[in-house]
Amino acid sequence: MSSAQRAALAATLRNGPQDEGEQSVERMRAGFALLMAGFPVPEDVRRTATSIGARPAVLVEPLERSHAGTILYFHGGSFSLGSPETAMALTANLVRRTGVRAISVEYRLAPEHPFPAAIDDGVAAYRSLLDDGADPGSIVFAGDSAGGGLTVTVCLAARDAGLPVPAALLAFSPALDHTRSGDSMRTKEGVDPFFTREGMRRTGELYLGGADPEQPLLAPALHADLRGFPPMLLQVGTDELLLDDSTRMAARARAQEVDVILDVVARVPHVFPAYTGALDEAGQALDRAALFLTQHLPAG
Amino acid sequence: MSSAQRAALAATLRNGPQDEGEQSVERMRAGFALLMAGFPVPEDVRRTATSIGARPAVLVEPLERSHAGTILYFHGGSFSLGSPETAMALTANLVRRTGVRAISVEYRLAPEHPFPAAIDDGVAAYRSLLDDGADPGSIVFAGDSAGGGLTVTVCLAARDAGLPVPAALLAFSPALDHTRSGDSMRTKEGVDPFFTREGMRRTGELYLGGADPEQPLLAPALHADLRGFPPMLLQVGTDELLLDDSTRMAARARAQEVDVILDVVARVPHVFPAYTGALDEAGQALDRAALFLTQHLPAG
Repeated sequence: MSSAQRAALAATLRNGPQDEGEQSVERMRAGFALLMAGFPVPEDVRRTATSIGARPAVLVEPLERSHAGTILYFHGGSFSLGSPETAMALTANLVRRTGVRAISVEYRLAPEHPFPAAIDDGVAAYRSLLDDGADPGSIVFAGDSAGGGLTVTVCLAARDAGLPVPAALLAFSPALDHTRSGDSMRTKEGVDPFFTREGMRRTGELYLGGADPEQPLLAPALHADLRGFPPMLLQVGTDELLLDDSTRMAARARAQEVDVILDVVARVPHVFPAYTGALDEAGQALDRAALFLTQHLPAG
Repeated sequence: MSSAQRAALAATLRNGPQDEGEQSVERMRAGFALLMAGFPVPEDVRRTATSIGARPAVLVEPLERSHAGTILYFHGGSFSLGSPETAMALTANLVRRTGVRAISVEYRLAPEHPFPAAIDDGVAAYRSLLDDGADPGSIVFAGDSAGGGLTVTVCLAARDAGLPVPAALLAFSPALDHTRSGDSMRTKEGVDPFFTREGMRRTGELYLGGADPEQPLLAPALHADLRGFPPMLLQVGTDELLLDDSTRMAARARAQEVDVILDVVARVPHVFPAYTGALDEAGQALDRAALFLTQHLPAG
């Protein structure tokens, strides 16, 4: 039990820097990088700059590899902020817990590169692993927030391009509905210590670039055909505007005969597995995520 | 991937003995014991007859204990069939995977002892552990089918009797709604290789004994106040009449700020974690269940 931890974390976040109206993308990016630098990266991984597809990337390796395969990681940041570095605490925590290497993709960001640039870069990264001879059964997709959404949309786009699907998808608090029609968008307004509807509307517009959100690659929780999808694990907190992105995606997966674990923790914020220092539930959730990933990867 | 395993298992179950109309309870009990004897019990546990509360029970111990605490196990069988022995494969698989001892309760059965006898026996068993000095944080409830339902209703009744709640609840394909109002009661009729609505109506009547099912202890998925509940893990297959007992319980738990993992596997039958010999997903689900339980129990 960590109800005291949960309450303390919520209070800290509420007292933190708030959404202060229209900011330049550059200021938002700098602020986000500063915020995310507060999450300590475990030391027992090796990080190497590399490239994948036509994009820069970071290879993150465990000191001892216990499972073959690759975690293809997509960082968060509302599709317009962030980089492999800003999500490195999460990526590295997965790598050390699974003993599996990860490649975190520096996909193109909005507004310079709106939808579907990020998805295109994700598919190109995946295709590049397959072209190098990797078995799709040895690749899992993982990501947080916007990057959690990319685990699903990159899988959709890859399948529709005729590629085989990866072995599993892991998403922390994924963004799966740019129509923003989930009940939690209203019921968690003022509860979510991190997001406001207005803030999400602004960053959403940057990514959409005028595109209609009523389509599978922008609202997969509502419109995706998930046939042939691999097992999915969605981890999300009850204080989130994005809660129902996950609950509706899980319902859709069940209805389409896809294995899906919907792992909900009460009174924790967006991407709660990042808070390993403040919240017992964070490390426990990462341990469950690591077991899920290794269950779907070849041993050795 | 085990789509071939899943299809083969479904075909086997469909060709098995079918629900053949009204049978005596004695015949149903004998048939159920025979059916469940087909699930091999792992050898690396010790089984000892004991008693708890005023009821017989079976103590199931690992060869090496890695965690303190006790799994209080409730077997399945529609509240009118079964015993600790009929669920022993599941109980023993949890014990060997967790390194935690279990006590499986021989609660009273309908129709001789209808609702709420089984719940009363469960609460008495739990109270007896607490009276012996056990920390409630060292006790988890686990069960399958009707026994999965008891994990929730015994926790409700215990809390309402002023007892502290246990550390976690684990339920395999739980029965959580005697109003039988879930969509899956219709949409999975003819898909479920195990249950028919008519068969469930008959065994339901035995347990109800005339009681109104519209109450928390008979339809917790609809009516339970889950305040203060510990984390729950529900594992269920998409081919089940009982699927929506779990989906609605999970939605209710989320709405009431209870940690809940809804772990759904596609195209597998009722209590699929029992099929460790036939289905890779069974052992994987048990491994996830074991991690969940040990995350909520004290080490050592």
